[in-house]
Amino acid sequence: MNLRTDLALEQREINAQNETDGIDCEEYKKGNIKVTRIKITNENGEQKLKRKMGSYITVELGNMGETTANHEAATAIIAEELKALLPKEGLILIAGLGNDKITPDALGPECASLIFSTRHIGKELQKSIGFENLRPVARVIPGVLGQNGIETGEILAGIVREVSPAALITVDALASRRLSRLGCTVQLCDTGVTPGSGVGNARAQISKETVGVPVIAMGVPTVVDAATLACDLIGENSKGKIDPNSERMMVTPREIDLLIEHSSKLVAAAINSALQPHMDINDLMALVS
Amino acid sequence: MNLRTDLALEQREINAQNETDGIDCEEYKKGNIKVTRIKITNENGEQKLKRKMGSYITVELGNMGETTANHEAATAIIAEELKALLPKEGLILIAGLGNDKITPDALGPECASLIFSTRHIGKELQKSIGFENLRPVARVIPGVLGQNGIETGEILAGIVREVSPAALITVDALASRRLSRLGCTVQLCDTGVTPGSGVGNARAQISKETVGVPVIAMGVPTVVDAATLACDLIGENSKGKIDPNSERMMVTPREIDLLIEHSSKLVAAAINSALQPHMDINDLMALVS
Amino acid sequence: MNLRTDLALEQREINAQNETDGIDCEEYKKGNIKVTRIKITNENGEQKLKRKMGSYITVELGNMGETTANHEAATAIIAEELKALLPKEGLILIAGLGNDKITPDALGPECASLIFSTRHIGKELQKSIGFENLRPVARVIPGVLGQNGIETGEILAGIVREVSPAALITVDALASRRLSRLGCTVQLCDTGVTPGSGVGNARAQISKETVGVPVIAMGVPTVVDAATLACDLIGENSKGKIDPNSERMMVTPREIDLLIEHSSKLVAAAINSALQPHMDINDLMALVS
Amino acid sequence: MNLRTDLALEQREINAQNETDGIDCEEYKKGNIKVTRIKITNENGEQKLKRKMGSYITVELGNMGETTANHEAATAIIAEELKALLPKEGLILIAGLGNDKITPDALGPECASLIFSTRHIGKELQKSIGFENLRPVARVIPGVLGQNGIETGEILAGIVREVSPAALITVDALASRRLSRLGCTVQLCDTGVTPGSGVGNARAQISKETVGVPVIAMGVPTVVDAATLACDLIGENSKGKIDPNSERMMVTPREIDLLIEHSSKLVAAAINSALQPHMDINDLMALVS
Repeated sequence: MNLRTDLALEQREINAQNETDGIDCEEYKKGNIKVTRIKITNENGEQKLKRKMGSYITVELGNMGETTANHEAATAIIAEELKALLPKEGLILIAGLGNDKITPDALGPECASLIFSTRHIGKELQKSIGFENLRPVARVIPGVLGQNGIETGEILAGIVREVSPAALITVDALASRRLSRLGCTVQLCDTGVTPGSGVGNARAQISKETVGVPVIAMGVPTVVDAATLACDLIGENSKGKIDPNSERMMVTPREIDLLIEHSSKLVAAAINSALQPHMDINDLMALVS
Repeated sequence: MNLRTDLALEQREINAQNETDGIDCEEYKKGNIKVTRIKITNENGEQKLKRKMGSYITVELGNMGETTANHEAATAIIAEELKALLPKEGLILIAGLGNDKITPDALGPECASLIFSTRHIGKELQKSIGFENLRPVARVIPGVLGQNGIETGEILAGIVREVSPAALITVDALASRRLSRLGCTVQLCDTGVTPGSGVGNARAQISKETVGVPVIAMGVPTVVDAATLACDLIGENSKGKIDPNSERMMVTPREIDLLIEHSSKLVAAAINSALQPHMDINDLMALVS
Repeated sequence: MNLRTDLALEQREINAQNETDGIDCEEYKKGNIKVTRIKITNENGEQKLKRKMGSYITVELGNMGETTANHEAATAIIAEELKALLPKEGLILIAGLGNDKITPDALGPECASLIFSTRHIGKELQKSIGFENLRPVARVIPGVLGQNGIETGEILAGIVREVSPAALITVDALASRRLSRLGCTVQLCDTGVTPGSGVGNARAQISKETVGVPVIAMGVPTVVDAATLACDLIGENSKGKIDPNSERMMVTPREIDLLIEHSSKLVAAAINSALQPHMDINDLMALVS
Repeated sequence: MNLRTDLALEQREINAQNETDGIDCEEYKKGNIKVTRIKITNENGEQKLKRKMGSYITVELGNMGETTANHEAATAIIAEELKALLPKEGLILIAGLGNDKITPDALGPECASLIFSTRHIGKELQKSIGFENLRPVARVIPGVLGQNGIETGEILAGIVREVSPAALITVDALASRRLSRLGCTVQLCDTGVTPGSGVGNARAQISKETVGVPVIAMGVPTVVDAATLACDLIGENSKGKIDPNSERMMVTPREIDLLIEHSSKLVAAAINSALQPHMDINDLMALVS
């Protein structure tokens, strides 16, 4: 029985609490917000954390109430961490992954709908509306395999080839092991993403190997697997007691609709801020909502 | 620590498995569908089941897949059970309780939006559109206290006084103790309802005492309390292990949006069918969607 | 053939351009915003303007672009005009009229969903969350006759009797004669409202006579009747040329969804501001969205 | 001043009422439904109808009431006309064009969301769920340039290259010259589409030349340009009287939300039926809604 988690941080809690060869770790705190940077540097680290070599950054925002109060500080910190992973210039393509018809999976589509796309705004028009030197940005909401009959990775590969971005940012809902993290933690990594893993329906990886440009994956936990929660509570020895229905069940806050709305805005604000650092973030968000 | 449930059937499993004074019980099966009628007949029954004297009918539809397949048979059975609780004639008012902005709480509003209202259709018009002898039906979606600043019971009392129905039917989302019941069980009772209890935010009762006409309450479990699930798994002795965040958490299927849609249609079809027995239920549902 | 308009200001342009017995008029300007106060003082005025004796205030905000830019100034002016029509203290009930499923008719429901309800927040809780002396406010979204089988006036009469407000404010979508007014004009009056007249489906009046408390009606034009537009263009002599389909047609901006969103926020902000003058309006709106 | 129309049929009414070199025309009727096939065969026809050489088929369904009643017959006729334009086998990709946030432009996205995608369903799974010999189908909802910063044509070219369909079907909202056609006419053509022309914001063409595979364009008129309506009413000599605001205005039925829902279902049913002719169309539509 697996404790399912999309967070490198939680995988480390399970398999590698102490110092481990191939796993570097550093932390800092700013107010209530805690940032952990995990770097997997060799195959031993890969095996322990069940992830590819690369950087995994977790921004923990405190509880849900604090998350809302910390909105501006959190935006700034996430934007800084994102900037460090992004190429300094060139077009950035943002893809909002997930199914917009299933609330806890709608984080990606909601977030992408709040991205300020600029690739189509000519220099002339930029001047006339009072913006200058906008970084080119495009976004896409690809939908999911079950709706489209096309793998998300295929759609993104096709569009990437067409528009040639310097990097792709994906945003997706994640699964966590802990209720306390739902809507309160943001993960960034530079190794790509396996869409659908957050809702138990993993698809082909989207990474530099498959789409041809660097892929920065961002996500927020929106569910805990009911089976994972049960396991955590009763331990591995008592599997028999777990309701088989829990396989298709998830645990979320009652206000999952609100959680998705807040988390989408937070991640979108961080991305918009990282990409247009000269603009006021409130003005920017007003343009897209 | 309480095992929270809105189903009389589950309360009986917990407190009164055997024959108990003041609790009468009968069951029947039709295909895969199982109907249990519990009657609380005295104060001893009231204490055991923590509910008022009256009838509590549970229709169990099998699992989620069967529920969809059984749609027509289930509609017919629920309609029959409902008819037995309703006055034979006169205006029926349906109230869809709950918060339409919180998916697992949106069952009532969604269901009410599918009710075929007829009170305003004059005899002439009925004839000219090919319907006759429609039973007068009205519906209302009152919203919740936190949005309105008005108790749902106050709104309903006001409207009941204005339109004088023979009975009020309420539809609301319920909490169950068992994952396997989510979206697969319908409860009817003739003792009224405490809105919001299904999402852990109980308000003043709506019953004959408070609104002045008989109140038939219908509901479908859409969530299991995370704390209840945990309790069930690990027993009362290990409370300490339960994540305090589980208080505000609920367990639902990933496809909660779909569950709400299907359950709303099922309950609405049963109500429409019980109230306009001479009409074809497919024609009826086509009129409202 | 009628030029249909819900604005007293436009009726005056048609029937009473010059000074008329029974119609008093005053105007003022603040920046780009123009306020016209029309007072109908006797039966002659009633006949000319096809409206009951009372005050009709129109706030003209310039064009759509200016409307967005003027948002704060407009909020303040509308709030002031509203305050002058409201009782100084006591519960205020806001009703958002119209059909939330028909975009140009959804102004009322959208607006009401942004009202800050306070009636249920006890003094203790107010203190503990840092608010004090909140004026009691409640709101309701009654739906429409075709959905409910109940006249909106009946629902409001029932709720008014239950909660006894000092006054009722209704918000509804209006029809204008001029394209240039859509989304750019707000009308307030103290004589009540005939719901549905803005979408060509007038229902029983809601006024002090029918619900028992003063009724302040607010509205924003969201459509021009296609027949009215045609009439205006070609004159009364050429009726024959008008497509009979125009009867059920309306003219709106392509961005009607956006118009409804902006107008709802503007009217809600003005109401919230008028009712809680000690609170910062941005904080207030953040609480409800 | 232009009479704007996306229908070849209406362009012919304006510029080529009589027999014209380069324009072939045939008509047939089935019940109340009228089908007109216009073929542009040379440059003279291209100039007169302002369209590329190819086939333009219009299915006229009577008025809105008849349209709903005729749903099954209309589905069958449109499916037949579509089949004649499609390659006999191979993957078909359907693209729902337009902005899902602007009601009258949401036809394409709504329609695409009702397409039965099969490309990802393996032969084994097809057998196990009782379907066999499903034609491979995929679909995509690309969004619009203003949201994405990417031309719709670019997105489609990228995806077409990735999945190599035998043909692309686009679905888009159209502008008509006549109110009576809104929601009551379907146009099919085999020359591709210029997305956004229906809402006055034309983008780069999507055609065999630009995406590399045959492009069948389907559409339903959802708006009349207010300026076009005015022009038609008052003639070209009186331009001065037309409100300049009418440029950004459109005329639609009040029930535009309903029109979009019905038209989307009709076009989706026709496409699903043409692509899976061995399946019952009601079963098929139940699978996707």
